[in-house]
Order: sequence, then structure tokens, then C-alpha cells
Amino acid sequence: MTLLHGNMLIAHGGGPTPVINSSLQGAIEEAKIHKEINHIYGARFGVEGILAEDLMLLDNYSDSTVALLSQTPASVLGSCRRKLNENDYPKILECFKKFNIRYFFYNGGNDSMDTCHKIDKMADASGYEMKVIGIPKTIDNDLEGTDHSPGFGSAAKYAAVSTVELAQDAAALPIHVVVMELMGRNAGWITAASALYKDKMPCEHLIYLPELLLDTEKFLNDVKKHFSMNKGLLITVSEGLKYTDGSPVGDSGIRDGFGHIVPGGTAQALASLIMRETSLKSRAEKPGLLGRVSISNQSVIDKEEAYEAGAFAVRSSVMGKSGYMVAIEAIRVPEYSSKMTLVPLSEVANKEKKFPLSWINSSQNGVTDDFINYLKPLVGSMAPEYAVF
Amino acid sequence: MTLLHGNMLIAHGGGPTPVINSSLQGAIEEAKIHKEINHIYGARFGVEGILAEDLMLLDNYSDSTVALLSQTPASVLGSCRRKLNENDYPKILECFKKFNIRYFFYNGGNDSMDTCHKIDKMADASGYEMKVIGIPKTIDNDLEGTDHSPGFGSAAKYAAVSTVELAQDAAALPIHVVVMELMGRNAGWITAASALYKDKMPCEHLIYLPELLLDTEKFLNDVKKHFSMNKGLLITVSEGLKYTDGSPVGDSGIRDGFGHIVPGGTAQALASLIMRETSLKSRAEKPGLLGRVSISNQSVIDKEEAYEAGAFAVRSSVMGKSGYMVAIEAIRVPEYSSKMTLVPLSEVANKEKKFPLSWINSSQNGVTDDFINYLKPLVGSMAPEYAVF
Repeated sequence: MTLLHGNMLIAHGGGPTPVINSSLQGAIEEAKIHKEINHIYGARFGVEGILAEDLMLLDNYSDSTVALLSQTPASVLGSCRRKLNENDYPKILECFKKFNIRYFFYNGGNDSMDTCHKIDKMADASGYEMKVIGIPKTIDNDLEGTDHSPGFGSAAKYAAVSTVELAQDAAALPIHVVVMELMGRNAGWITAASALYKDKMPCEHLIYLPELLLDTEKFLNDVKKHFSMNKGLLITVSEGLKYTDGSPVGDSGIRDGFGHIVPGGTAQALASLIMRETSLKSRAEKPGLLGRVSISNQSVIDKEEAYEAGAFAVRSSVMGKSGYMVAIEAIRVPEYSSKMTLVPLSEVANKEKKFPLSWINSSQNGVTDDFINYLKPLVGSMAPEYAVF
Repeated sequence: MTLLHGNMLIAHGGGPTPVINSSLQGAIEEAKIHKEINHIYGARFGVEGILAEDLMLLDNYSDSTVALLSQTPASVLGSCRRKLNENDYPKILECFKKFNIRYFFYNGGNDSMDTCHKIDKMADASGYEMKVIGIPKTIDNDLEGTDHSPGFGSAAKYAAVSTVELAQDAAALPIHVVVMELMGRNAGWITAASALYKDKMPCEHLIYLPELLLDTEKFLNDVKKHFSMNKGLLITVSEGLKYTDGSPVGDSGIRDGFGHIVPGGTAQALASLIMRETSLKSRAEKPGLLGRVSISNQSVIDKEEAYEAGAFAVRSSVMGKSGYMVAIEAIRVPEYSSKMTLVPLSEVANKEKKFPLSWINSSQNGVTDDFINYLKPLVGSMAPEYAVF
């Protein structure tokens, strides 16, 4: 095998995760070991930076700065949500040629894997020799082909810790039904993770995921049944929850310049519904983006796997692999371990892994122990220890 | 001085703080040292528990359970928002007599200090010998007579950490103006604390406090001026913000059964305003109650002072003091130290310490360094260290 010499480029796509910078750290530190890779570039604001030829030279950052990446929230390179059109791809190739990019890594979710796949095919078709690997990233855990996605374990920990802490408050001052909205437009993984510390919950807890449509009558009956004057009630819901007619719960009634629905808050809509239709008070919390930036809620295993995913992508590419996404294979028995593997980009691009209906309880307002068992090792840390009076 | 022998009762009033359980720990551990105090009782759900004679005997909890209090969010005793009427006071005295309560500690904010003051006067007038001391508690920092209130340092740390983390996200994916709502109905202390780590902010940051009415035209001009295509913009606002006509920004248009405004989210209202009136996208975050339950954001100094406030209340009462609130005296030069002192309840009851207008900047969208210097030691921890690329 002839070695492919040249420069490498890494780019971020879509929303950041609490550990996407760890994958960057893994990729940079691995790249420095391989003589095939000369310069390391990062694209400023994802594909926007590639199109604008706005690349940052990453070689010169000190080892100590690179080591700080794993404790830095969001994306130090910047990201974007630009959907590429056919005219963009030739420009991307031009940029690659200009900077002699022979190794390209795109760290993103399902849309980004589609882009990554197209870039790989385009380079191949045009005879430009390069290696293209996708690094998985999404707090939503909705990527196919991998046991779970880097970013999910930390977002899940945020959801779990916030829920058990908030429940202490809901039970201590049980004057209202507390509704908390968590991220997840189509997939309920993060909201499902709010059940993790269920043995520590001082009040009842209802969970509604976007995989099921919300029947308001059933919802209000659930609320009345489970609210306790002495313990309150906590409800966690996904932002993307829809009513049985398919309309979003969080529709503010406002449309933006493109005619798209402006979300008005799913939790707030449900709190208002509870107050209109029952005699109970209710209030809404929406940590929103805070759920994907919290460093104190990083899962250690998630951070390590994110790092390894970045490093493994680089290692695989210099071994000649291209057109793949890094995936995580998990072994759960007798104890958790994971290893990185590769899946063809064609198998993951644009697909969406929803929360399995079999992991939703029969009352359709909670999750099963099978899911908790899946989740536990990904979050890693023990349940918090509280004084119980 | 004749020793007053009898039992002690402690109750929580109003919303919990991240360290109110630390004050409880301080009070319990101190009470165990004093032979004047026989049994230690806690009121279940604040004054509701006193009126219902629903007291918990706290003597029997193990030292290790009591030691867990400082890492337990919310209130392990439970709290309430009941405003007492004149008929309630005799019932309270009855409960005190029945349980031989000679030492009463009420841990709460300005409303609670008023209740505490009235209980002290009533006991005195009826010739029932007892000692009554208020322990300060409020995340809002709006209590008079004390340099700051236990609970504020931790809520301030939550606001500061959330802001600097969220700013990394706002700048990494600068496609929208991010508006975050923080707690504080009339006083802007918590929202002002979002400025703490301003030297680490990767984007511009605007702050709007309820001490000033919000002029929408000026607000929108601020937004347009400070938003950057490459860095985004982060805005933090207090939940209690009002427009120049005095109407709440967060009015949902819904009224509850008592005709009170149902808050619809101040941040969401401003995000919608930005989208209606400018070409910018905007999104809203509202961590709400999460800002007063987060254990990972506890300020160490706040936790220590809260503990000491509880212990000092007990110590003062067995020395014969009654009718006072514990207050914190702070020395800031050459370095921060604090000590507990007593202020008459009459001087703090029902008063509200707002954020000083002199600490708001001249553009009315930020705070001055004088406030940052006041705040720093109360939060204690250093700014997070990030990789900057």
C-alpha cells in the first residue's frame, strides 16, 4: 500500500454536543502521530468555512490548549446548519485541492453523514485521491449504525440530574405541577433519560416522548391521577411533542420569515393546558441549549468515547479506509465496554433512529427497565446521594 | 441568666435555595451541643406544618444523614407559600405550647421574616417565654440588613456558569439571538450575576434587569447593534421584566382561577419580539427552578455561610437573643471574610433590597465592575478554563 501524504481537514456540522471538542482533541492528537498527515486544518463554521476557504491551521496550538478541548463546551471550530446544494460540491473539491486536503473528517449527525457520503463519492468520481470519514455526534442519539452516539451520554446525564434535582423542589413545595421540556424534535432519547434516577425520585414522574402523539384527555387524566398534594408531580416532555392531530404542542402561533412555525415552548403550552383544564397550578422549565453545554454534567465514558471516535477516524483513514462513519459497538455483559468500528456512510446517511416503542411503558407515560439498563453505563456516574427526612 | 430549657422547632418558608438544607444542618448540629435544647423538631411544609401540628422529630436522624444535608437540593422539611392571617397566630402558639417549643427558627425571605417578627411579638405579648430567630434565605438576594443572603451565591454561580457555557454555543452556531431567562421577579441580582465571567465571553452579552422598565425600541436597537454574524449574541433577562407601560413581558394572556397573570415566559416573549421585528432568528431558554436546585453549582462559600447562619441562630438564641434575623457582615479588603451578626426583625420584615441602579451601566444593558467585585467572593470559584481556537 502506498502511503497517501497530504493535509487533513476536520469540520463540525449541526448543533454542538458537550463532547464534540473531545472528538476534535482525539483527532488532532492522533493526527500528530502519523507521518502521512502534514498540516491539520479546521473549517470555521463547518461546511461554510470550506466553501469560503476559511480554514484554521490547528498545528500551532500548544498541547496544553488542545488538552483543554475536553472541558470546553460547544464547538471551538464553529458549526453551521447549511444544507449543501449540487453547486456547492465542486467548490468543496476546489478547496480541498487548494489546501491539498487528503484526509477529511466530518463530525456531525445524520444530515452531516449524508454530506460526508456525497463528498466521498464526488472525490472518488473526480479522481481526486482522498479519505473521507464521518465522526458521529449528536445529543439526540438518533444515528443509525451505532449502539449510541457520542454526545448522548452527557445530554442524558444532564436530563437525569436535572430531573432528580428538580423533583426535590417539586416535592418540597408541592404547589404546582412542574413541566420540564428537554431537547429532541423527533426522537425522545434525551427525555427518556430523565427516568435514570427513578429510585431517588421523591414524587411521581411522567414522561412523554415524541414517538407517540399526545392525547390531551389522557394527559390531563394522568396529571390528575398522579399529582399529590404532599409530593407534587414532575413531568418531562420532549420539545418535539405533537398532538394527536399532528400539530406541534409548542406552536407559538408565530411564523418566521420562511413561514416555519416558531416554537413557543412545549412545556409552557402543557403548563397552560393544565391550568386551563384542571384546578392545579403548573409551571414550565425549558433549559434548552443548556442541556448540550453543561461541562459539570459531562459523562466520563461519553467524553472518552468521543475522544476515541475522533482518534479512530484518523487511524482508519491513514490505513486507507474511506466512505465510513465511526460507530460504537457496546458489550454490556458482564460489564460495559465499547470499541470503535466502521459502518458504510450509505447505511447511516439521512436515517433517524427513534426511541423504540418497546421501551415505552404500557401506560405510555414512562420507560421500561430495559432502557434504563441500556442507559446506565452511558451516563456512568452513580445516582446522587441525598438526605431523606 | 436562667437557662431556658425546652424543645426547638425549625421551619422553612418560601422557595428553597441550593443551600437551605445546609442551614438546617448547621442548626441541628449546633442544637445537639446545647443542653438547653431537648428535642429538635422540624415543621413539615413550613407554617402549614405548625398549624397542622405536623412536626418531624429530627433528633433521631443519624449524623451521617444530617451530614448529607449540604449536598441535598431543595428543602428536606418541605416549605409553603401560605400567608398567615390573624386567626393563625393563636394556633401557632397552641402548637408551641403543646410541643414545649422554646426555640423557634424560621428560615426564609422577607415575607417569612415578617411572620417571624409577628410570632416573636405574639409570644412576648402572651407571656409565653421563647426565643425566636430568623435565618435568612433567598436566591434573590433581596433581603435588607445583610450584605447578601445565603442562597444567592449559588444561584449566582448557576447564572454565571450557564451564561458562559451558553455563550460558547451561541458563538459556535451564530444563527440566532439566544435569550435566557433567569429567576427574579422584582430584583435583578441573579440575572446581574450572569456577567461574572465576562472576560471569558466569546460573544457580546446584553443584560436586562427588572429594576428598569424595558423600552422595546431601545431593546431592538441594542439587539441589532450587538448581534454579530460570526459571534451571535446572548441576552440574559430577569423573569420579572416589565415593559415601559408596566405590563409584564412574560404575560401569556392567560389568567388563572384567581385572575392572576399566568407567566408565559419572558425570554420566549422577547425571542418572538426579535423575530417579528428584525430579520434575525432568536430562541429562548428558561432554566427556571433548575437555577435553585443545582448541586454542582453550589458556591462553597455560600454553603459554608448558610451552615454558619443556621448554627449562629441557635447559638444566639440559647444566649437569650430573640426577635432578630441572622445577617452576614462581609469584609472585602484585603481579602474576603464574613461573620454573622444579628439585626432586629422589625428592620428587615417585608422590605425588599433591589439591585442598585448605580451598578447598572450607562447603556442600561449591563452591569458595572463594582458589582462584579461585590459578587466574585460570593461565588468563589474561578472562571472556567476553555480552549480558545
